[in-house]
Amino acid sequence: MTRTVYVNGEYLPEDQAKVSVFDRGFLFADGVYEVTSVLGGKLIDFAGHAKRLQRSLDELQMANPVTEDELLEIHRELVRANGIEDGLVYLQITRGAADRDFAYPKEATPTIVLFTQAKPGLADSPLAKTGMKVISIEDQRWGRRDIKTVQLLYPSMGKMMAKAAGADDAWMVEDGHVTEGTSNNAYIVKGNTIVTRHLGTEILHGITRAAVLRFAREAQMVVEERPFTIEEAKAADEAFITSASAFVMPVVEMDGQPIGSGTPGRVTARLREIYLDEMRKAAV
Amino acid sequence: MTRTVYVNGEYLPEDQAKVSVFDRGFLFADGVYEVTSVLGGKLIDFAGHAKRLQRSLDELQMANPVTEDELLEIHRELVRANGIEDGLVYLQITRGAADRDFAYPKEATPTIVLFTQAKPGLADSPLAKTGMKVISIEDQRWGRRDIKTVQLLYPSMGKMMAKAAGADDAWMVEDGHVTEGTSNNAYIVKGNTIVTRHLGTEILHGITRAAVLRFAREAQMVVEERPFTIEEAKAADEAFITSASAFVMPVVEMDGQPIGSGTPGRVTARLREIYLDEMRKAAV
Repeated sequence: MTRTVYVNGEYLPEDQAKVSVFDRGFLFADGVYEVTSVLGGKLIDFAGHAKRLQRSLDELQMANPVTEDELLEIHRELVRANGIEDGLVYLQITRGAADRDFAYPKEATPTIVLFTQAKPGLADSPLAKTGMKVISIEDQRWGRRDIKTVQLLYPSMGKMMAKAAGADDAWMVEDGHVTEGTSNNAYIVKGNTIVTRHLGTEILHGITRAAVLRFAREAQMVVEERPFTIEEAKAADEAFITSASAFVMPVVEMDGQPIGSGTPGRVTARLREIYLDEMRKAAV
Repeated sequence: MTRTVYVNGEYLPEDQAKVSVFDRGFLFADGVYEVTSVLGGKLIDFAGHAKRLQRSLDELQMANPVTEDELLEIHRELVRANGIEDGLVYLQITRGAADRDFAYPKEATPTIVLFTQAKPGLADSPLAKTGMKVISIEDQRWGRRDIKTVQLLYPSMGKMMAKAAGADDAWMVEDGHVTEGTSNNAYIVKGNTIVTRHLGTEILHGITRAAVLRFAREAQMVVEERPFTIEEAKAADEAFITSASAFVMPVVEMDGQPIGSGTPGRVTARLREIYLDEMRKAAV
């Protein structure tokens, strides 16, 4: 069965889902994206993703071709058309097609593309039981990581470096401190305290991050939003990552050294459970 | 008249020149490019661009779908089909289309796209007579600028910042020193000495840069390849940029202050003349 993909107002079979070679998403990485999880056929934190999408567009002075209601309707139609029970909806908006020039085109119609990825058992990933192994790498990305652009080559390279080292992912380090994972926010736990980097231009403002920190505080955990080092991570009791598609995922090894007991920790497991419970309840 | 565009082995009218929305060039900026100038219907330094293309591909472990001979043939066919006397040939290769995943796909066929842009009088740009105004901005790009990837959003933003300031371009500054322009290498001239940043991961290894420095040395000019500051630029006798499409272009103003006499300099004019003469002779 071929997927149905949304491109600029049309629902198309995936082999017909194309964009112009002059699209600035293709030529200049002049585009932003969001990924929303689907659990039980419903969207997880759609409103959070729609809000961040608008922020990314605003930062780049890029027009939004759809209203939030229209966007929700497209998400739901793709979930329905593709029979997604558990999976992802990927959304990308670019500045559109124009003859190639570094300067933004005066007139261009934004391009909007959405597609789904079926991920049966997304919330029951074996990694949630075993925990992830990560390596540390230098953060070589551009300076505005708070804008969710498609300039994702370095995160891709980081994932390949992790694979080559027999690990699952990489945590990126800048000026001696962890920024985040290749496609997720990074956390360590020491005692009852959760440490994660503060918001700024250095990291993505994770939608899952915001929810998890809210739930942690509601559960009387202490949250410190500050930079931390790889050495602190290695000396931590637990570590984990959050992302829209991994939710809360334990990290049990850093650069070949076990973190804490080398198995998924209690705090991480509890946060994952709370997050999934609460977000399923609020799914739309 | 519609342009003819080359996409994966086919010569197509430009409105049919499309790539899959799953192309990693579109989703991850996982692609590299080259721009070759055409003067008098002939390609300027094609061999240099072909060599750098291969280097970019190698750095990203990306396959090259064409031989150098085939690439030359495609360039020539597009120049002929589109009747380009003066202009540009743009070439992009991506890792190809695959279901979205940060990790490189095990099997994907690289995507190759080429198109032309007619630029009548490319070598007689009025800016060569008046000189360019530039502003200085922080360099916020990723760390591997020696790989010519399509992660060009920040250079685009820089061009817009320049426009907003009434300037023609921006020079980027990192750790107090100029790296390069948004799409060109940057130079200052003091006395008989030309200063430009040394090669490294911080700047693109300009094909035009290599040729111009060779010609400068042959003409007994002194070349210093080292970092320089914006203050040095403001105190210089002359400044200029080089790129495949601008050749050698004078810079006469930095952040609102005139450089030297505030008019295009003698050394710059001479280098531009030598470069254009020599490269026209060697064009293929």
